This record gives sequence, structure tokens and C-alpha cells, in this order.
Amino acid sequence: MTDEATAFVPGHITGFFSAHPDENPEIAGSRGAGVALSHGVRVTVRRVDGNAVSNNHVATDDTRENTADDRPDEATLNGDTISMPPVDTVRRSLGVPNAEVKAETPLPLGSGFGVSGAMALGTAYAANAVFDAEHSENELVTVAHRAEVEAGTGLGDVVAQARGGLPIRLEPGAPGHGTMDGVPECPRVEYLTFGEVSTAEVLSGDTTTLTAAGERALSDLRERPTADRFLSLSRQFAREADLTTDRVESVIADVRAAGGDASMAMLGETVFAFGTALSDAGYDPEVCDVHPAGSSLVVE
Amino acid sequence: MTDEATAFVPGHITGFFSAHPDENPEIAGSRGAGVALSHGVRVTVRRVDGNAVSNNHVATDDTRENTADDRPDEATLNGDTISMPPVDTVRRSLGVPNAEVKAETPLPLGSGFGVSGAMALGTAYAANAVFDAEHSENELVTVAHRAEVEAGTGLGDVVAQARGGLPIRLEPGAPGHGTMDGVPECPRVEYLTFGEVSTAEVLSGDTTTLTAAGERALSDLRERPTADRFLSLSRQFAREADLTTDRVESVIADVRAAGGDASMAMLGETVFAFGTALSDAGYDPEVCDVHPAGSSLVVE
Repeated sequence: MTDEATAFVPGHITGFFSAHPDENPEIAGSRGAGVALSHGVRVTVRRVDGNAVSNNHVATDDTRENTADDRPDEATLNGDTISMPPVDTVRRSLGVPNAEVKAETPLPLGSGFGVSGAMALGTAYAANAVFDAEHSENELVTVAHRAEVEAGTGLGDVVAQARGGLPIRLEPGAPGHGTMDGVPECPRVEYLTFGEVSTAEVLSGDTTTLTAAGERALSDLRERPTADRFLSLSRQFAREADLTTDRVESVIADVRAAGGDASMAMLGETVFAFGTALSDAGYDPEVCDVHPAGSSLVVE
Repeated sequence: MTDEATAFVPGHITGFFSAHPDENPEIAGSRGAGVALSHGVRVTVRRVDGNAVSNNHVATDDTRENTADDRPDEATLNGDTISMPPVDTVRRSLGVPNAEVKAETPLPLGSGFGVSGAMALGTAYAANAVFDAEHSENELVTVAHRAEVEAGTGLGDVVAQARGGLPIRLEPGAPGHGTMDGVPECPRVEYLTFGEVSTAEVLSGDTTTLTAAGERALSDLRERPTADRFLSLSRQFAREADLTTDRVESVIADVRAAGGDASMAMLGETVFAFGTALSDAGYDPEVCDVHPAGSSLVVE
């Protein structure tokens, strides 16, 4: 038993998706495709003594049935205390509501990089190690996926972040329900972020058009699963689903004028591209790689 | 289109397994659990001009139906030309029978590290990139799994090597048939190799006892999926399946006398352990890490 463990979870940009809600959060999810990034989230979970937290709960099975009175401490992200409901749900699901969760990331929150999914999944992996909870990877992914879906903050990031690479979500849902494939490439990734888009707002609205466009894109990608095709299908999807902003459209137009291609991250005011497409168009993007692995513990 | 591409495939030690043959090689496979290793196989596939190979076949769809007359060049492993039937099958399945395949690895062949599976899978990934074959990862894994099963050189290495980590094979078979889980740990790995065991010989014999022992071990691991438990179940399995040799038994006894645990790789005269267990018992083992990712292209 250790006092502290750290997990790394890759960031994840969804390029296109279709929404598949369900009353059962393990069955709910999305189909679609995306990119797991070497820029990700490091989540450290620490066992804290009773007197170090606001209430004296010891993290045992007895605390699984906490009520709202047992409000756990918030998590921190890059040193700032934030409210992150999926992280709270994961802690409660694992019976460790008072575990301390600290996350560090170069990625912006709310901009389409799956930071909330990464925090939920990283909390599950690290808490499992600290508290010797003895869950399998599928169980930890299920706990985090359920927490994301219940919070309305995402439908497919967690399963993609558990896989790594260029994940294709063939069927929605947690392990045992969903099925995955991948595009066998590892391109360099460039991205530029302008601001946030509320995932919860888009997902709670009418997703009929979006889902029809996402299903078409998935069917086309499966015919020809390459990184370039993924990017052009993502660009078409963003327009068909009416999710692009003027700033995003303008950057994409510049990249295409320079002979490249780019699209928008779902869901954030973020443009992403492969190779040097954004640089070639005169922009100064963030640069990272595809992360071939899914979530894992960090061995120091 | 590039002239050359390289894929890295992690080595894979199976700790315990049950054999599930089937007439359909995509359904055939094994249940069990193992360790994906940072020591693996780098497979480079190169497009060769007609005059550089023994026959003048151009690698197009027309060559998929090759007969024995169209014998492709052998592959090389660490510079030595070897016959590797699964690699030939992969080349033919992808319609590129004359692609040049060169593999480099620090792992010994035939000693339980999944080198043949890695060569098949690495050939699939690299050939897909060189010849713009536009297959998905599941398709490439299926091609390599089928080739391994048909050659009788393995039943579960390929799907484990495509996943990475500490893979648990819940259901046998290629993607779409088999299902996987994982132990969420990343221990340091130590191993010592004494010699070869013929996988084909064991798999073609009576596997009833072995399979019963493997099913019991899997059921126990699923109850408590930790690295330590995996190792002790593997040790029990090796004895119950009557696969250990005197040398292997003697090393395991030394490790246990020093307070550690170790088991035997399936199938090779190889002892493996986690942490520093072999070193602590006075041995001078090879050392590597768990490889958290599956097979992927190498970006130079």
C-alpha cells in the first residue's frame, strides 16, 4: 500500500461523433473518431489522514453510500481548486470520497481536449493503486465513463483515452458494451485554442443533425481508415453539424489555402491539424504527438 | 507513399493460458494473461523493385493468389535470414508477397517472448504504411493473428501485443471475436532465458489438463487482478500443466527462498519476475519495463 500514486491520461480530441444516450450510463456513449495526445493530464491521488480533510471519513467500503453531507474536497487543476463532478463520482464509486486529487496539464479545460474525462480516468487509476482496490482496467474505465456520462461532460473521451492512438469508437459505451478500432498512424499534431464550448449544452440540445453527420463520417472512415481521411471527414462534420465559429472557419480556410487541412475539436473553439499544416499557414500552434498508449500509472 | 516503414511491437510473455482451437483461425485463440515488454521487435518493411527480388512480382492485388511457385524472400532477424511462415502469410494476405522484411530484437526466438507474433504484427503495420493499404488496426491485428494461428506458432500473443500493458485475454480470437481486459500496473520486469520450448509441439498435443488449469487461473485473476496475483497464478499454472523444467524449477525455488516470486514464460525455458526478485536471488537477469502501448509505427 502506497500513500500516493500518479496516472497519466492522454488528452483526446474528438474529430466527429454521433451521440447515443441511454438511461444506463454504461451503455450510453458516442460513436466517432479522435486523436489521443502526448499532451495529457497527470493525476496524483493521495491518501489523507482524517484530520487533514473536512470530515473524518476513512476510505473504506462503509463510505460508499455517502450522502450530500459528506461532500468531498474538490480537486485541484494546475494548483487551482475546481469543482469536477466526474472526479467526485469516481472517488465515491471506489469508496474513497476523501482521497486528495491533484491534476497537472498543459491542456486548457473546456476546449475539446477531454480534460474532465482524463481527470476522472486518472483518478480511477491512481486511487485504485493507492487504496489497493484491485480493479481491472475495464472496471476502472467503466467507473470513469459512467461518471463522465452522468455529469454530461462527455460521451466518448474516456474509452478513447483508455485506448490511445487514433481511436475509432465503433459502438458506444463502456468496455463490455462499446467496441473500438484505430487508425494505424502516429502523425505529429498541431493545435490552436481560442476558447470554450459547453459540451453539456451541445449534448443536451437537439443532436439529430449532428448524429446523422457523425454516422456518415464514421461509415466513410471505416472504408478508408487513414489520418488524412479522418481530418477531412472531421472538417465536413463540423460544418454539417453547424458547430464551427467564425474564428475556427477563418483558420481552417488559411490552412487550406496553404495546401493543408485542419478541423475543429469536439467540443471546443480549437483547431487541430497534422504534420506542420498550421505552422505552414503562418500560425504558431502548440505541438505534440499522438500518444500510442492509453491511461497508465506513472512509474517514477 | 513511402519506400520504407518501421513498426515496434512489444515482446509478450504469457503467464498462463487455455487453448481454444477452432477451424476458423479468427475465432481460434487462447484465454489467459501476460506481460507486454518494452523489449520488443522493430520490423522494417521495404518496397523492393522487381529486379531486387528473386521473382518479378509487383505487389498489387493481382498477386494475392500466389502459388507455391511464387515463394517470397525470407525475412531477416538480427541480420540472419530465417524462415518465418506467419510473416509470409501476412505479406500474402496484404497482397505484397515480395515486400522485404527486416526485424531487429534483443529477445531470443522460441523462448516465450512472442517474437514470431511480433514479426507478423509488425509486418502488417509496416507493410500497411509502405503500400498505403488503408487497413484499420483491427484488420491488421486480424491478419497477423490468423497467420500465427495457421502456422501453429501462437494463439494469443498477437492480440496481447496489439494491446500492451498486462493484457488479460477474456475471450479467445481476433478483434470482433476476442475480448480483452488488463491489470492496471506497470512493474519492472526481470527475465532469464535458458532455451527453447516448441509452442507448436505443446499446442498440437493433449491440452486438456493445461486448459483446465488455465481456466482456473483466469477465473482467480479476474477476482483480484493484480500483478503479484498474476505471477503466483502463473507459477501454479506452469506446475499444474507440467511445463516446468528442472532449471526453471530451481530458479523459481531460489527466488522464493529470497522472499520473492517468479514463474515460467509460456512457452520457453524462461523465468520471469517483477521488481528485483531475480536480482535479489543472486541472478543477473535481463531487465525491461512493461510496455503500456500496443504495436505502433515508429516515427523517426
